[in-house]
Amino acid sequence: MRLADSFRSERFGAVRIQELQRVIELDSGAVHDTGQPSLSAGSRVVPPEAMRAVESQMVIVVPCMNETRSVIEGVLSGIPHDCLIVLVSNSDRRPVDRYEIESQTLEQFCRLAGRSAVAVHQKDPGLAAAFKAAGMTELIGEDGLVRNGKGEAMLIGMAVAAMTGRKYLGYVDADNYVPGAVNEYCKAYAAGLYLAGSAYSMVRISWHSKPKLRDGRLFFSRKGRSSQITNEWLNKFLAEYSGFGTEVIATGNAGEHAMTLELGLKLRLAGGFAVEPYEYMDVFEQFGGVLESSDAEVMAGSVPILQIETRNPHFHDNKGEEHVQGMRMQALNVIYHSPVTLPSVRQAIVDFMISQGALQAGQEPPKERVYPPVASLDLELLYDGLDAEALSFRQFDGRASNGLPPAPPIERRAIPHHAI
Amino acid sequence: MRLADSFRSERFGAVRIQELQRVIELDSGAVHDTGQPSLSAGSRVVPPEAMRAVESQMVIVVPCMNETRSVIEGVLSGIPHDCLIVLVSNSDRRPVDRYEIESQTLEQFCRLAGRSAVAVHQKDPGLAAAFKAAGMTELIGEDGLVRNGKGEAMLIGMAVAAMTGRKYLGYVDADNYVPGAVNEYCKAYAAGLYLAGSAYSMVRISWHSKPKLRDGRLFFSRKGRSSQITNEWLNKFLAEYSGFGTEVIATGNAGEHAMTLELGLKLRLAGGFAVEPYEYMDVFEQFGGVLESSDAEVMAGSVPILQIETRNPHFHDNKGEEHVQGMRMQALNVIYHSPVTLPSVRQAIVDFMISQGALQAGQEPPKERVYPPVASLDLELLYDGLDAEALSFRQFDGRASNGLPPAPPIERRAIPHHAI
Repeated sequence: MRLADSFRSERFGAVRIQELQRVIELDSGAVHDTGQPSLSAGSRVVPPEAMRAVESQMVIVVPCMNETRSVIEGVLSGIPHDCLIVLVSNSDRRPVDRYEIESQTLEQFCRLAGRSAVAVHQKDPGLAAAFKAAGMTELIGEDGLVRNGKGEAMLIGMAVAAMTGRKYLGYVDADNYVPGAVNEYCKAYAAGLYLAGSAYSMVRISWHSKPKLRDGRLFFSRKGRSSQITNEWLNKFLAEYSGFGTEVIATGNAGEHAMTLELGLKLRLAGGFAVEPYEYMDVFEQFGGVLESSDAEVMAGSVPILQIETRNPHFHDNKGEEHVQGMRMQALNVIYHSPVTLPSVRQAIVDFMISQGALQAGQEPPKERVYPPVASLDLELLYDGLDAEALSFRQFDGRASNGLPPAPPIERRAIPHHAI
Repeated sequence: MRLADSFRSERFGAVRIQELQRVIELDSGAVHDTGQPSLSAGSRVVPPEAMRAVESQMVIVVPCMNETRSVIEGVLSGIPHDCLIVLVSNSDRRPVDRYEIESQTLEQFCRLAGRSAVAVHQKDPGLAAAFKAAGMTELIGEDGLVRNGKGEAMLIGMAVAAMTGRKYLGYVDADNYVPGAVNEYCKAYAAGLYLAGSAYSMVRISWHSKPKLRDGRLFFSRKGRSSQITNEWLNKFLAEYSGFGTEVIATGNAGEHAMTLELGLKLRLAGGFAVEPYEYMDVFEQFGGVLESSDAEVMAGSVPILQIETRNPHFHDNKGEEHVQGMRMQALNVIYHSPVTLPSVRQAIVDFMISQGALQAGQEPPKERVYPPVASLDLELLYDGLDAEALSFRQFDGRASNGLPPAPPIERRAIPHHAI
């Protein structure tokens, strides 16, 4: 993959946010990386062997909710072979058991492609019990099951990824009609994580365009409805500190993003759709140098956040206006409630929300749920719980289907111990 | 890339048409090809080095007519780095010179990506003069310029490809909104040509689905409007010989297809939209064993035609109903007029066309224009003409933009001599 160089960045303590970089070529051939921007004109190649090295250490988590079989099949076909797939489903289990269809699709794909994967259902009572045993009761709702929500699915996926011992974690939404876009996201993760060159890095995707129906024809919109607002306020947050207006953040709502697990395990994920913007706020809180950091090692290095604009259009199901309004406000809630957000920005958020009819005068924005870091989990207890009680927990072993000695993606004796 | 195995094929003389095979993984990692179907279940991996070997010998011809800049940029970004790009444009040159915009886009892309390319405009008087000098007056219309038409653009592209000395040729339409689909087409060409393992092979793409607007929502249609008819009649053509009904041909109208240049140079391309279905008829005529073949070498071997179903949706501009009706009838015209089509099929075609209102009773289907093979051209004279007179002829040299000694894609002293 060839990326345009990113020349500018904004710092916030140890956090370094790189300006958006474009993908120039999806496949840059066998050209070798010279270790510096290419002679020609501001582009940078990540050679195939470097991409492969990251991919073979990457887990791709696919949160899934009631997608059709053919869409899921397409998404799976786009995930590079060396990545391990983790499907976290919150699909309906009756009248038709859609999770059963999904995991059959996954099983067939793994058999045909000789790949490994893990699947689990978010509302499996055994999953809730395992998280309780492993030390995260916060995740459990009043019904005794893991709470609904995208952030919650992502947390489950991250915990599974942590058990595999792999180094990188990427998220890909299951509602994507373009397998080639999924492939590009994963390639961009690998390229970005390689270029970031830090144990604590993150890569966030900004899609090229989003096709929408308008007056019976397709219009390729450049900006998402809620991203625009989220990015604007995250940038205001930064500008209020630096005194300089900025547009550096272009990926506040990026569903598609990846990170080193070393960083991921330290993050506190938020619930629902607050999860993506809150990742920014959390790194600002933990590594921004405003609050005291508990992590001298990270503070001494840096936390690079690369933002990559992909070539493919982001072509997915339209979830409707209500969904968007919800996402938008959840982002503002987390910025408002962050202890590092300056008072003037907090006031401006309240004013904006009132003007949008999302808040009554005198009210405070609601607080979003924020979970402890995945590093606080006892992964061995989590595994034991999943293995013993979670009926939806499945491991598909690609090695076995290739006639090699079996090696499931997660093995109890190989679960790494992460320092909290 | 990982493809499902194709177990069945139909023979027609030396021509072997393989049943449609699905793409299973866009990127199958560094898994090595075992030289036989994988153990697991009927899939076959083409490893990256094999893909690369084909790509670095492949020319991708992009016929282009009045596409927007951003669509062209996307298509270019999807073509694997090692392929050489040949843009053949028939875009308007006034009031705005769209060819100028296109070739600037191509030049910038090549500079940024360190790549090589060739561009030429179909209506350039110098191009017509060059083809006349090289011995193909059939291509020239009454206005003294190269005729309009897609087949004509493809022929120009093939002649340019022949001058580069590369071994493979693939076509990619410029009106594609999904760069990842373009990438998949090129990868499927490379995988297919590798698997075909013959000096005279062809790979034809059947896209997974085509998104269409219907009642304000998207519907992913599996079959193209004109492909359905074309395939049906090509299969009837085969069945009439074998006595067994067949559905083997699924790519009669495939705009996206690739071949070895050794095969390509022998083909007689048809004009306009007859070009793609006529490729089938032409191999049946030349290598089907019904007519006497002038080519004992090809007849002694085989002409494999692989058909690959891609994962990505084919998402392009809707050209409207008239365009489709035109394509459909041009396909029937070439089947009707082929000397190898049996009388009963010819009669059935006439009946069908009358029932469709495309023909009056008593009329004969019109004859499509068919050109001599590109191998009949004197390529050195063609080059001299382009170099001296074709003002739109441009070579972009990726090596020079990488600071390496210049090496334009076509050099007079390196033009290969093809036996006719």
